[in-house]
Amino acid sequence: MIRPDEQTAPNPAELPTTKLWGGRFDEPTDAFVEAFTASVGFDQRLFREDIAGSTAHAKMLAKVGVLTTAECDKIIDGLNGILLDIERGDFSWVVAYEDVHMNIEARLIDRIGDVGKKLHTGRSRNDQVATDVRLYLRGAIDRIELELTRLRAGLVDLAEREADTVMPGFTHLQVAQPISFGHHLLAWYEMLTRDAERLADVRKRVNILPLGSAALAGTSYPLDRDYVAELLGFDGVSRNSLDAVSDRDFVIEFLSAASVSMMHLSRMSEELILWTSAQFAFIDLPDRFCTGSSIMPQKKNPDVPELVRGKTGRVYGDLFALLTLMKGQPLAYNKDNQEDKEPLFDAVDTLMGSLRAFADMIPAIEPNRERMRIAAKQGFSTATDLADYLVRQGVAFRDAHEIVGKAVRHAQNAGCDLSELPLAQLQAFSPKIQDDVFAVLTLEGSMAARDLTGGTAPNQVRIQAAAAKKGLQRS
Amino acid sequence: MIRPDEQTAPNPAELPTTKLWGGRFDEPTDAFVEAFTASVGFDQRLFREDIAGSTAHAKMLAKVGVLTTAECDKIIDGLNGILLDIERGDFSWVVAYEDVHMNIEARLIDRIGDVGKKLHTGRSRNDQVATDVRLYLRGAIDRIELELTRLRAGLVDLAEREADTVMPGFTHLQVAQPISFGHHLLAWYEMLTRDAERLADVRKRVNILPLGSAALAGTSYPLDRDYVAELLGFDGVSRNSLDAVSDRDFVIEFLSAASVSMMHLSRMSEELILWTSAQFAFIDLPDRFCTGSSIMPQKKNPDVPELVRGKTGRVYGDLFALLTLMKGQPLAYNKDNQEDKEPLFDAVDTLMGSLRAFADMIPAIEPNRERMRIAAKQGFSTATDLADYLVRQGVAFRDAHEIVGKAVRHAQNAGCDLSELPLAQLQAFSPKIQDDVFAVLTLEGSMAARDLTGGTAPNQVRIQAAAAKKGLQRS
Amino acid sequence: MIRPDEQTAPNPAELPTTKLWGGRFDEPTDAFVEAFTASVGFDQRLFREDIAGSTAHAKMLAKVGVLTTAECDKIIDGLNGILLDIERGDFSWVVAYEDVHMNIEARLIDRIGDVGKKLHTGRSRNDQVATDVRLYLRGAIDRIELELTRLRAGLVDLAEREADTVMPGFTHLQVAQPISFGHHLLAWYEMLTRDAERLADVRKRVNILPLGSAALAGTSYPLDRDYVAELLGFDGVSRNSLDAVSDRDFVIEFLSAASVSMMHLSRMSEELILWTSAQFAFIDLPDRFCTGSSIMPQKKNPDVPELVRGKTGRVYGDLFALLTLMKGQPLAYNKDNQEDKEPLFDAVDTLMGSLRAFADMIPAIEPNRERMRIAAKQGFSTATDLADYLVRQGVAFRDAHEIVGKAVRHAQNAGCDLSELPLAQLQAFSPKIQDDVFAVLTLEGSMAARDLTGGTAPNQVRIQAAAAKKGLQRS
Amino acid sequence: MIRPDEQTAPNPAELPTTKLWGGRFDEPTDAFVEAFTASVGFDQRLFREDIAGSTAHAKMLAKVGVLTTAECDKIIDGLNGILLDIERGDFSWVVAYEDVHMNIEARLIDRIGDVGKKLHTGRSRNDQVATDVRLYLRGAIDRIELELTRLRAGLVDLAEREADTVMPGFTHLQVAQPISFGHHLLAWYEMLTRDAERLADVRKRVNILPLGSAALAGTSYPLDRDYVAELLGFDGVSRNSLDAVSDRDFVIEFLSAASVSMMHLSRMSEELILWTSAQFAFIDLPDRFCTGSSIMPQKKNPDVPELVRGKTGRVYGDLFALLTLMKGQPLAYNKDNQEDKEPLFDAVDTLMGSLRAFADMIPAIEPNRERMRIAAKQGFSTATDLADYLVRQGVAFRDAHEIVGKAVRHAQNAGCDLSELPLAQLQAFSPKIQDDVFAVLTLEGSMAARDLTGGTAPNQVRIQAAAAKKGLQRS
Repeated sequence: MIRPDEQTAPNPAELPTTKLWGGRFDEPTDAFVEAFTASVGFDQRLFREDIAGSTAHAKMLAKVGVLTTAECDKIIDGLNGILLDIERGDFSWVVAYEDVHMNIEARLIDRIGDVGKKLHTGRSRNDQVATDVRLYLRGAIDRIELELTRLRAGLVDLAEREADTVMPGFTHLQVAQPISFGHHLLAWYEMLTRDAERLADVRKRVNILPLGSAALAGTSYPLDRDYVAELLGFDGVSRNSLDAVSDRDFVIEFLSAASVSMMHLSRMSEELILWTSAQFAFIDLPDRFCTGSSIMPQKKNPDVPELVRGKTGRVYGDLFALLTLMKGQPLAYNKDNQEDKEPLFDAVDTLMGSLRAFADMIPAIEPNRERMRIAAKQGFSTATDLADYLVRQGVAFRDAHEIVGKAVRHAQNAGCDLSELPLAQLQAFSPKIQDDVFAVLTLEGSMAARDLTGGTAPNQVRIQAAAAKKGLQRS
Repeated sequence: MIRPDEQTAPNPAELPTTKLWGGRFDEPTDAFVEAFTASVGFDQRLFREDIAGSTAHAKMLAKVGVLTTAECDKIIDGLNGILLDIERGDFSWVVAYEDVHMNIEARLIDRIGDVGKKLHTGRSRNDQVATDVRLYLRGAIDRIELELTRLRAGLVDLAEREADTVMPGFTHLQVAQPISFGHHLLAWYEMLTRDAERLADVRKRVNILPLGSAALAGTSYPLDRDYVAELLGFDGVSRNSLDAVSDRDFVIEFLSAASVSMMHLSRMSEELILWTSAQFAFIDLPDRFCTGSSIMPQKKNPDVPELVRGKTGRVYGDLFALLTLMKGQPLAYNKDNQEDKEPLFDAVDTLMGSLRAFADMIPAIEPNRERMRIAAKQGFSTATDLADYLVRQGVAFRDAHEIVGKAVRHAQNAGCDLSELPLAQLQAFSPKIQDDVFAVLTLEGSMAARDLTGGTAPNQVRIQAAAAKKGLQRS
Repeated sequence: MIRPDEQTAPNPAELPTTKLWGGRFDEPTDAFVEAFTASVGFDQRLFREDIAGSTAHAKMLAKVGVLTTAECDKIIDGLNGILLDIERGDFSWVVAYEDVHMNIEARLIDRIGDVGKKLHTGRSRNDQVATDVRLYLRGAIDRIELELTRLRAGLVDLAEREADTVMPGFTHLQVAQPISFGHHLLAWYEMLTRDAERLADVRKRVNILPLGSAALAGTSYPLDRDYVAELLGFDGVSRNSLDAVSDRDFVIEFLSAASVSMMHLSRMSEELILWTSAQFAFIDLPDRFCTGSSIMPQKKNPDVPELVRGKTGRVYGDLFALLTLMKGQPLAYNKDNQEDKEPLFDAVDTLMGSLRAFADMIPAIEPNRERMRIAAKQGFSTATDLADYLVRQGVAFRDAHEIVGKAVRHAQNAGCDLSELPLAQLQAFSPKIQDDVFAVLTLEGSMAARDLTGGTAPNQVRIQAAAAKKGLQRS
Repeated sequence: MIRPDEQTAPNPAELPTTKLWGGRFDEPTDAFVEAFTASVGFDQRLFREDIAGSTAHAKMLAKVGVLTTAECDKIIDGLNGILLDIERGDFSWVVAYEDVHMNIEARLIDRIGDVGKKLHTGRSRNDQVATDVRLYLRGAIDRIELELTRLRAGLVDLAEREADTVMPGFTHLQVAQPISFGHHLLAWYEMLTRDAERLADVRKRVNILPLGSAALAGTSYPLDRDYVAELLGFDGVSRNSLDAVSDRDFVIEFLSAASVSMMHLSRMSEELILWTSAQFAFIDLPDRFCTGSSIMPQKKNPDVPELVRGKTGRVYGDLFALLTLMKGQPLAYNKDNQEDKEPLFDAVDTLMGSLRAFADMIPAIEPNRERMRIAAKQGFSTATDLADYLVRQGVAFRDAHEIVGKAVRHAQNAGCDLSELPLAQLQAFSPKIQDDVFAVLTLEGSMAARDLTGGTAPNQVRIQAAAAKKGLQRS
């Protein structure tokens, strides 16, 4: 059984008679409004972070004397009990309590009595939720980095194995020059390596503790914010309470990095889809990564890359949702910000799932080396090598380019490759061409000649793969 | 209890031994890939539409002789039984069956035996899902139109009641001219009326039957597509099978219309938030549409408009997800398109909920007429009336504008309104000003003078409200 | 010489000593602020519309007696002179006059003296600019519709000619079933036809006159708005002045329609790029639509479709700029709205240019029929036909699908097509297969069999092409 | 005179008879296609970067012996001459030469003869344009950082001056607690400080040299890439040629950072607009940052913040243009990528202009301290202080919250502030309240009590301002 339809009306297990903030209100919240404005349907996902944050808050309150040690212990015992209840599914989330924070606090009071009412001293849901989301995102980034590393490692291994495999390099989806298949795989590796670097930069700005900012102005209790930061593993504390409760930059930054990462996966997907088409047939994907058709019995579809390509828009949409959300909001906290969580969760799940699927799939790619080689011979892929040959004979590059262009036109009309033209014919285009030109026009010669940093020569591929392996060990 | 965490692993109730498309495959789908690529977690929401579509398809197959009447009856009985099962929660959705279509078909075969295997004759999941989504969206548009109508009706009623209530009209959030509060409400009405028109335009292009396009090329069975269209209430049938299975324009069109609609609600929200602030205090919202603070006991927050303003970005994100999804996709169906449904469902739910909350809340607005009136007096709101007065005395508009600008500067320095300057002082700016000028400078005089189509005169407000009521009766 | 760099500092030809609104101000505008907030750098493009609107406004003012006939004539003469000046490049746009409206009005006063100061009676720049943009967009839509029609007509002609040309139909970029190349082209036609319908729907909501709404509240002058609407060809007048000056729905609606249209062109582009690759080689594009490489002499790149695919994002960006712009804006006019014009102009230019390039290019496509035919034979494209054959022999569809799946696996291992398996071998999968099966397995047989509305049979292609031609004649 | 209308047809000053890549082509490019696909209209803006890159490339070619010293000197002289020509406006950009690169190269050959044809040895426009854009963006980031620093410094100065100024702090735009105006300004400072950090992170990934990647595969010439990097001030060289020519991550990263920065400015703008409204009247903006109305003589509009708020969407649109552009592109270079430059230029210009306007405007803000103070007294802003007081008397926080909520309701009905209730009345809500409560209920008492890191106490504001000044000196 799977996630039930979201249309299902919320069905509160128990209805609280009073809100935790109801003192000043004359009438209860409208039932539809209550369900419409509640966030517990999705923010319950933060229960671990909420309990971790409350635990640290309680320890700190004891340290500074706002709670007694006994009170603190009672609260922490209560919170630990609630954590277990939730993990084993024995917790009724109540819509009328609005969110994960109030649900847990209400249950704490139920469980340990009046001492539970002291936990919220010196904090507000505004700094509490900011803390929870930062804890959640820090953990998510760490999990994503692990999958990224696994995928990058798979690419490097494959690249090293395929350093000598020749394939056509494309620009404008036209055959351009022969390249190493390993080199192509390392291009993907570079893209993903930047993703990892970006995530590390984002993490720096995520890992700052907002707790202690209270509703917007700080609090009059003598909180020890550095102690809370230490307990929760934060790198530092926020420096302005107004900013701390209204800042969602860190979510947007993550969504930007996730969008670029999905964009990279979409480019890899596009190529995998092309390469598994009958027209390219450069690679095979094992059946276990593909699905069939309900009507066409012969079909084997590259579902994983297609789906990942499709999911790209979803993460872009999450990013745009947050950018729109924050645009023009006055300080400090506004209810609008409740809408930050679902796009974040969605992007984390989408990126994690996509990376996992790719990390599983990439090592299983089976290259069809013969097809790649044949394709690399098409399209006059060594024409640039002929131009470079002429330059080495003293022809200016622009003139050499013009000469080769005419030779290509001739060969095309003749229905053959440049290397298949007789020497005399080639010399008609330039008398500087000699017999040694044919070595230059081979695929292997072309590829091996590009032996500078970043070039496609198999030698370079091996150098870059080795460096990548070292980089991965450090990460 | 509420929607469980999406992190929960799918827990298939029963594992099918073979896929419905597995004949050509050598190994089973990887378990993670299966869960990652399955859509049944969200597309199960289309079960009613799927069963309605299958029922019509079966009837048609019987009409054209592909099924016998007995076979058709058996299939329809089976489908009806499944519908009841799902509605009463007695249906196990199986991830291994991928989607709502295969789940229902597999259950049908379980239930009625081999005759169930004939249902899929002459169709594909490609045209089946397109049909389901169109049926779903048509229904959603109709439900949204009802909420829109209810909200618009509430606005007209309130506008009519408040036709004579004066408030400051703003440009650049600076007081500009006195206007009728009813007139302001009718501006909102106009925005929402365009939304209704747009949805009606979208509906035309939604309500076209794709079934009969099969996988991409049509089918060799002699289907009667017009009959299916008639049974399902479609206005016509699609004219190109390739297009029909790959087209998602209708989803994007809806998301565009929904985005504009949310944008309108965000503008209304912004004003409601301003108007309930202590600084404006133009209106009160009843307690039942507000919530309190976990730390500040005095707070009463306009949660509903804030949240709706925040939800705007979410629908924009849904739109952008779809536009990105479809960009650069070759024809015909690609797996990417599976990603069309969640953004659509999300936008429908968000718009429906927001409209419902507004339709409930708008009639409960309590204007604070005295505060509005005082505010309208500020900011020299009748300065334009003085310029117009001078024009009527023969001064060219640009000269009149310059004269009044100087009078305003003088009054501002003197700390009084234009109407509080003595006549002699006013005449120092222009000798054409006479004693009758003071009638022109009243709020009521200013407002009543704008008595042309679309103007703010209470008379016009009543005319437009009456016309709106007629329009609503027709819709 | 081309558009100079935008970095160039504005260089006002003449500096006005006073603003037209300066009466109340103590100090002049800061020079950078003046340049930063001025719109004349881009809104000068609306000069024709601005003059047309002013001309109609003047005529109406004369009709209702606010201007004398002589004054009106003088103003119109002045405006006509300015129009000529601008058209022949003899007009100095002045940044200090902020926008196109003030530039033209200031020049009018220069030219005809004080009577020019009467033109702005009863209107504001708020309703003036809304009128200008609506006039501009109406014209742009009409020009776009003409290019769309030209492109659609080119597609229909080509489709009719290629009705019998067989190509592989793809789903998931895997060969699925044989289709008619003409059928594929008509799929594109359908997409563009919806675009035309959408633009017509947008045009209805564009073509409403806002003039008469003045700054936000209407005006006290007895304007004849219906007369202005008639003079300018509007279908009606706006019904609420607040809404009329703050509404930009019509721009967003256009940008949504333009985004979908660009998305369609991006899909066509993707296929054109694939089809011109060496791997597909389904078509050739004449050299005049392609460009070469600065380094690889042999390259011939499909620049036009690549660039159009790339330009898609640009129009999406314009749409999101406007959606963001309008989100959460309080009524009525705010300076933010000045930002509506550049994205609109950009989208109009981009869509127009892209359509024009496609309308020129599409008729020049040269299909490589032999390559298409060979490709259609790959990938067991008639497997569905075999399943349908079995159904006609009484096998249930699901069973037939399973049987054919196994046959495909066998043929794949044998390295041949289904049609190349001997009858005895086929009968091993199902004894119901007879000798007549081979007719079913031909490309032509498969294609011709799909002879229902929307199907790929050449007969249907001709029917749809003929209907399309009729539709184009009406438009 | 200002930027002419983009509609103007390109008017090439001279038409080249042959393309630099034309050898293989049979017919010239279509005239419209030529104009449509040319980028010189906008990429001419990169002329400085292009010449700098070519100069470094020539020096390196000489160093490795591909050019003689004499050839190198001749080329550099030629490039320097062209630079001067362009800077003094004496350069005719030719559409037929497509882009800035070919225009400069063609002019170089014109100017210095055949030796100019050797410059393009070992490079391609693909790596050349990537180098140009990186150089441009690095410079743009540095200019933006300077404006950011100026704006941040202005905020800190103002914050320090206004540390003791009390204003209402808002959540949900409802008065929440009294805060220091200086504290609010420092919240803005924090937002902008993160922007500066982000830009520094982006710059790291921008400042990598792609030159040497040639078209896609590297080159067979023995280029010294590290030497070029050193000459141009790059931090390192790219490690994969395929990736280097197709990567536009750095543009997207910048656009993301710019979007967040504009979002921050939009939030500041929203508050400035609110604060200058008659209803808030917290601050005045000098006339030189405002403009007037063409119809309402009394208006003074906060144009700069409104316009900046409006420009936010534009930069978001630029970001989404690029994300869409790159989605699903196969490697390596495609013509689509030509579309990367205009959104980048637009975002740089928009962010620079907005920051400059704000850096000029912020120090000119004139706070209306009396109005702020009065507003802070409204809305029971010290209610939290009463609750905290009760906690200090031993009441659990949740109970204290409830007690104060009831007191607020009572005071609201009585039409007075909490501090105006007699002690006896307060004691009716809780007997623990004593006479010392009234000190707690003052604005100053409330503010000063929040004296922890990040809190609003004037003492903290001064500490944070001092730390900020130190940080700015380092940057």
